[in-house]
Amino acid sequence: MTTHTEAPINPQQQALEDELVATVVASFDAAPNPRLKEVMQSLTRHLHAFIRDVRLTEAEWNTAIEFLTAVGHITDDKRQEFVLLSDVLGASMQTIAVNNQAHKGATDATVFGPFFVEDAPEIPLGGDIAGGASGQPCWVEGTVTDTDGKPVPGARIEVWECDEDGYYDVQYTDERVAGRAHLFTNDQGQYRFWGLTPVPYPIPHDGPVGKMLESVGRSPVRAAHLHFMVTADGLRPLVTHIFVDGDPQIDIGDSVFGVKESLIKEFAVQAPGSPTPDGRSLGDRTWARARFDIVLAPAGV
Amino acid sequence: MTTHTEAPINPQQQALEDELVATVVASFDAAPNPRLKEVMQSLTRHLHAFIRDVRLTEAEWNTAIEFLTAVGHITDDKRQEFVLLSDVLGASMQTIAVNNQAHKGATDATVFGPFFVEDAPEIPLGGDIAGGASGQPCWVEGTVTDTDGKPVPGARIEVWECDEDGYYDVQYTDERVAGRAHLFTNDQGQYRFWGLTPVPYPIPHDGPVGKMLESVGRSPVRAAHLHFMVTADGLRPLVTHIFVDGDPQIDIGDSVFGVKESLIKEFAVQAPGSPTPDGRSLGDRTWARARFDIVLAPAGV
Repeated sequence: MTTHTEAPINPQQQALEDELVATVVASFDAAPNPRLKEVMQSLTRHLHAFIRDVRLTEAEWNTAIEFLTAVGHITDDKRQEFVLLSDVLGASMQTIAVNNQAHKGATDATVFGPFFVEDAPEIPLGGDIAGGASGQPCWVEGTVTDTDGKPVPGARIEVWECDEDGYYDVQYTDERVAGRAHLFTNDQGQYRFWGLTPVPYPIPHDGPVGKMLESVGRSPVRAAHLHFMVTADGLRPLVTHIFVDGDPQIDIGDSVFGVKESLIKEFAVQAPGSPTPDGRSLGDRTWARARFDIVLAPAGV
Repeated sequence: MTTHTEAPINPQQQALEDELVATVVASFDAAPNPRLKEVMQSLTRHLHAFIRDVRLTEAEWNTAIEFLTAVGHITDDKRQEFVLLSDVLGASMQTIAVNNQAHKGATDATVFGPFFVEDAPEIPLGGDIAGGASGQPCWVEGTVTDTDGKPVPGARIEVWECDEDGYYDVQYTDERVAGRAHLFTNDQGQYRFWGLTPVPYPIPHDGPVGKMLESVGRSPVRAAHLHFMVTADGLRPLVTHIFVDGDPQIDIGDSVFGVKESLIKEFAVQAPGSPTPDGRSLGDRTWARARFDIVLAPAGV
């Protein structure tokens, strides 16, 4: 790490600062839980390195305390501003990354997000997940294979997404289940379903995290995406999204850093009246189609 | 920083994690305030380095979110648990350190703490700061000089401390002012006053920060100390404490890391009836005396 202060730090000062770090690190030496000790000591080293690198002023320290206090005070059972803060600093995505290590040839993971719900309805192959949620119909199909290219029959695929107004069903005022379902791959490892073409939406931005984003010129908007969670015996579970090629928010920046190049897919818009893969009639509406071939890593890697 | 995970991180994974850090750092590139940009980018680098170093698990991330939420919820106008958290991680002391750089020959600074009050009463040289606060009387004397050894007349010295039960006056249920005052050095740069022999006391430890300290086997107790803030024209203001040589809490560990070797002073206990420096009669009580010679750095260093 480089030091950005203009005046050089004198050796006596360096020694004082080093000694303080060593003292705080040592204060955790007697922690009975070795993992807690490791985490707290690493946190201490990085926190102090940050303060020293930027030569944090006392006024900035006060601002930080006030900011965290505001984050704490807006947080309740329905709103979790600390998770939002972790998200917009990329800390959530980095935690996902270190717990879902890349495996050559396997599909990349991305953030789980706060909108997954257990026990979403099962649909048959080719079924519709919308459940009344509004939006442009979108046919999604693909295969699930292992890293040897072998099809995975019976893989469980959970999919969920927001409606065209950017709301998940759990954000509705009623108890409707919409925009989510699960299905299973067939004997050839294939899957297909009707969903909605994903749209961008902002994370809650009327609180301190939103103010912070505004003050640094960042957008609160998430790139349009469709969530997947795929599980199959003997293979590593995969939590990921697919993103929409051409979505301008990808260049502006996904507010929680979920985008990976490999997960950007073409959602090809079809003219009204074009024949649908399953013969479904959509009248004079446009629809889209996307393909997402999923490769699962071996379990335990 | 070393990586403590047992499995080696594969190069594809390293690249993904590096790329994420770069993306989050770049998200602050357009911040209109260059200092805010610098701080947020450094924070991002250190936060991600921490997550990657310890290979933070998703369960641990959840615990961290719950902990911060609890810190936020106990914080109100009277209790500032984020400040407490900063204190016990040594972050407050490191912030003081970087803003009060060591200057050869000058007295070391330490934490300001939350108990200073503006407009404490003025006392004459040799006056008593106790104002009715209970404790063993303690005579404190010394000089204020610059780093050339030249006495500083008219230096303003603010002193404040807790009573023998570990409470500052602002923690009393009434509005009494006690255990605090200010005085000025004489023409020879000398000062002297009656205070109380400092005693150790715990920081508030019935909340999440206290639980954290308990879980890592750390004491919430601060080493006994007497606060000083010294200001004089043309010299750098000094915020510091003196600590009591022999206080067992110094070895156990001051809970906010304020102790510096150079600030530990002898508080020599005097037998009942021993003559006091100013002839004050203390009956059959013991009393103590301490000396603290203060050296102020030039202003602007």
